[in-house]
Amino acid sequence: MATPLLVSFIAGDRGPWRIVASAAVIGDALPAAARLTMAEAPVEDRPSVWTLRGITSNHRYTSRDEALALRARQQGLGRTEARCAALIPIRKSAAWWDLAQDERRAIMEERSRHIAIGLDYLPAVARRLHHCRDLGLSAAGEPFDFLTWFEYAPEAAADFERLVERLRATEEWRFVEREVDVRLMRDT
Amino acid sequence: MATPLLVSFIAGDRGPWRIVASAAVIGDALPAAARLTMAEAPVEDRPSVWTLRGITSNHRYTSRDEALALRARQQGLGRTEARCAALIPIRKSAAWWDLAQDERRAIMEERSRHIAIGLDYLPAVARRLHHCRDLGLSAAGEPFDFLTWFEYAPEAAADFERLVERLRATEEWRFVEREVDVRLMRDT
Repeated sequence: MATPLLVSFIAGDRGPWRIVASAAVIGDALPAAARLTMAEAPVEDRPSVWTLRGITSNHRYTSRDEALALRARQQGLGRTEARCAALIPIRKSAAWWDLAQDERRAIMEERSRHIAIGLDYLPAVARRLHHCRDLGLSAAGEPFDFLTWFEYAPEAAADFERLVERLRATEEWRFVEREVDVRLMRDT
Repeated sequence: MATPLLVSFIAGDRGPWRIVASAAVIGDALPAAARLTMAEAPVEDRPSVWTLRGITSNHRYTSRDEALALRARQQGLGRTEARCAALIPIRKSAAWWDLAQDERRAIMEERSRHIAIGLDYLPAVARRLHHCRDLGLSAAGEPFDFLTWFEYAPEAAADFERLVERLRATEEWRFVEREVDVRLMRDT
């Protein structure tokens, strides 16, 4: 587990990723924008339609066995063939955050199989999770708790749809109070 | 569990808390300063000898049973009689952060009894944990992973010494690579 990496998702009129769709799944949508930059280095504040920031972190729920299974199968971001991406910002309810660690783990994995479902789509669908809830960047609090970024080849698009469908049908998702689904394509 | 609260600990020449001692337990010390302010509201950047920031967050390891036991016994900060305080900033090693969730929980509680030890000193020693590792406030990363703030009455000072002694003797503490121990008194 490397040092936490602060990542900015900057939507506006430039960037290597073209936004092909943006839909509110639960709650409010994000404003429409044409393109997106995912910046892994600190960037100056610049005009954008919206900017979301999150930080990679240590595992919060994953057990050693699960971490090893993930590590054995997953591939990194930036694969040439992975021209499709999705950015799925999520906020969970106060009821979720009020649960103790063992209760959240039971809902998330023992009952909802969140980690196991993700494993089913490796290595085709690469994934990186960014945490926002505890960033402390804004006095008002962050609009989302998590930003998940997925990358996959066009051939895996149907698999990706099935992945998000399965996750949205879980008990864990009853605690999601805002979810936006942004789809992107990279120019070749 | 309330919304995360960003707290600044500002050491310099003013503030209601007088710094009576500051010692490096493991690794580098913090520069000497006379007084400290704990600011729970966002504060403008102001000259200080050092400023540390952390954010309260959801439980990361605590089970429901433990959370109920804590809730039943703990008291809040700011009690009139609690004129003594300690601020203990800690950084853990990369080896700790590389462990999976179940491994960290096993070391921290099943083997080190961190939560149980804290319970032994409630309600006399009030405690609030602040997370820094994933703050994203500084490109260089934060100097500490956690800031723990304790408040107790002068009569509980020996109990507090015993609490920190017991924690420092645990297996969990082998993963601590920097620890500073700042002691404070509030003017009455």
